[in-house]
Amino acid sequence: MAGRLGEFDRIAQFFSPLAAGFPGALGLTDDAALVDPGPGYELVVTTDALVADVHFRKADPPDRIAQKALRVNLSDLASMGAEPVCYTLATILPAETDEAWLAAFVRGLAADQAEFGISLAGGDSVRTTGPATFSVTAMGRVEKGQALRRSGAKPGDKVYVSGTIGDGALGLAVLMGEIRDDEAGTLAGRYLLPRPRLVLGRALRGRASAALDVSDGLVADLGHVAETSGVGLVIEADRVPLSSPARRALDGDSRLIATILTGGDDYELAFTASETLPESLAGVPIACIGRVEAGSGVTVLDRQGRPVTLTAGGYRHF
Amino acid sequence: MAGRLGEFDRIAQFFSPLAAGFPGALGLTDDAALVDPGPGYELVVTTDALVADVHFRKADPPDRIAQKALRVNLSDLASMGAEPVCYTLATILPAETDEAWLAAFVRGLAADQAEFGISLAGGDSVRTTGPATFSVTAMGRVEKGQALRRSGAKPGDKVYVSGTIGDGALGLAVLMGEIRDDEAGTLAGRYLLPRPRLVLGRALRGRASAALDVSDGLVADLGHVAETSGVGLVIEADRVPLSSPARRALDGDSRLIATILTGGDDYELAFTASETLPESLAGVPIACIGRVEAGSGVTVLDRQGRPVTLTAGGYRHF
Repeated sequence: MAGRLGEFDRIAQFFSPLAAGFPGALGLTDDAALVDPGPGYELVVTTDALVADVHFRKADPPDRIAQKALRVNLSDLASMGAEPVCYTLATILPAETDEAWLAAFVRGLAADQAEFGISLAGGDSVRTTGPATFSVTAMGRVEKGQALRRSGAKPGDKVYVSGTIGDGALGLAVLMGEIRDDEAGTLAGRYLLPRPRLVLGRALRGRASAALDVSDGLVADLGHVAETSGVGLVIEADRVPLSSPARRALDGDSRLIATILTGGDDYELAFTASETLPESLAGVPIACIGRVEAGSGVTVLDRQGRPVTLTAGGYRHF
Repeated sequence: MAGRLGEFDRIAQFFSPLAAGFPGALGLTDDAALVDPGPGYELVVTTDALVADVHFRKADPPDRIAQKALRVNLSDLASMGAEPVCYTLATILPAETDEAWLAAFVRGLAADQAEFGISLAGGDSVRTTGPATFSVTAMGRVEKGQALRRSGAKPGDKVYVSGTIGDGALGLAVLMGEIRDDEAGTLAGRYLLPRPRLVLGRALRGRASAALDVSDGLVADLGHVAETSGVGLVIEADRVPLSSPARRALDGDSRLIATILTGGDDYELAFTASETLPESLAGVPIACIGRVEAGSGVTVLDRQGRPVTLTAGGYRHF
């Protein structure tokens, strides 16, 4: 029983304060939470699990791990045009996890809750003999029928992305010691701490014909839009927006284009629209990187307009 | 990329069919699901994670593991008086998990979806170097303001439980070879396959003053009601309903009373009510096992009405 009571004490000490702002959490004292999207709204629900040394590095700062776990889910809410409501969290932790680690983890969650306007609503706390693992289910709300989907891209639409692409994947390469970042920490910071594009996602309601967040890699994710919408996407590699450290890394090693376009962990929004959009929306820079055509799949064009395949060596021409 | 594509193929092959009945799942092709509780309803949301060799045995049949993962969450919905709507599932699996295992796991989910009227709405599928782990977030709906809570027990109320108590914990002892079950499989079956009391939970709306499901052990769980409601609960051990194999096991070894009352994995409902309830509700046997008093904590009385403490050796008198 002592172990179980310890668990309840941990919940009361560490997690209940995270639920204080959300009445439906019932103080984390009940079997479940109550969530009401409100009249005219429906809930948007997403689940992402993260495993140590797969989705984050075990030695990463605990507050950053917490924030990444929350933010990859918030990014999914952003891609649907939803505003955050609440989340549940399953912490699946080795027995040796100490309270200092947990306290730092919770501080990360508290900071992001304040930044993104979301509260803990419930969850579970269990032990594992394996690596630290977190499963977050985030809930947002969107006006009924207004959610952004992957399936609405039409031939003639333009393809856009927000922010810059490739920083997360290059940041992981920096952290692994594979490449150097001449702007200390910029790339690694993007890997450790994604920025969910919630405000942009809201602004895209009624404007984007299809949208998703870039998590698996730009080309793979745009492939989902192509498949779900039943269209082909043509991307001009040169128009994909890069940060200055990513640009310099690519100038130093042209093979990194493959990492940039397929590496993932961007958590930017990629979307299509029939209208021509301005250079920024809701304060976020957006760039047109290509077009939607009849057909299927994603075609990447190089500077000369030739279709290329992305490989570990960079481009390969057909 | 091959690994990722393999992952998407797995989702399409194994999990998309589980989402076919729920339009808000969007065919599992978007970043999130859409969930609408409907006018006059609010959502009830619960998350439970299960780890191999902690919450189930690694060698248990995969369909039973799947059903247990879903049912412990459904039991939480039952305890709030909710009807099931949908669930998300994070599967966190070792690389060696083969497709036959996954197919059996999915068959278990499909069977329970049909039995309990719930659909898969989304989730995640990731690899771990640790034990197989599942995190389920189940969503139900309940008429606004009608959810059963732990906090409403009042002095003078009676304490009830559904079904029989102790079978799950004794079933685990059978599976561990610690005790024998003379009704082959009854006790072990209760451990492997909980029965969420969804219909009873619905019937308790407006009748129960407090309710929860018995998962951590009857005494510990009633302790949550006592604490949340700010009352004391007095339980007469002799009135706790036992199945015939549990009764015979206890007749053979009186120390098993501690396993029965504190072992957990019952997934029955425990609840309080001011009115005297019939011997069954919604087709489920219920038994009055005690009363609510002013005070705090849970007091267990033996046959002679003396307060006892439960230990590994059974009862200990004060």
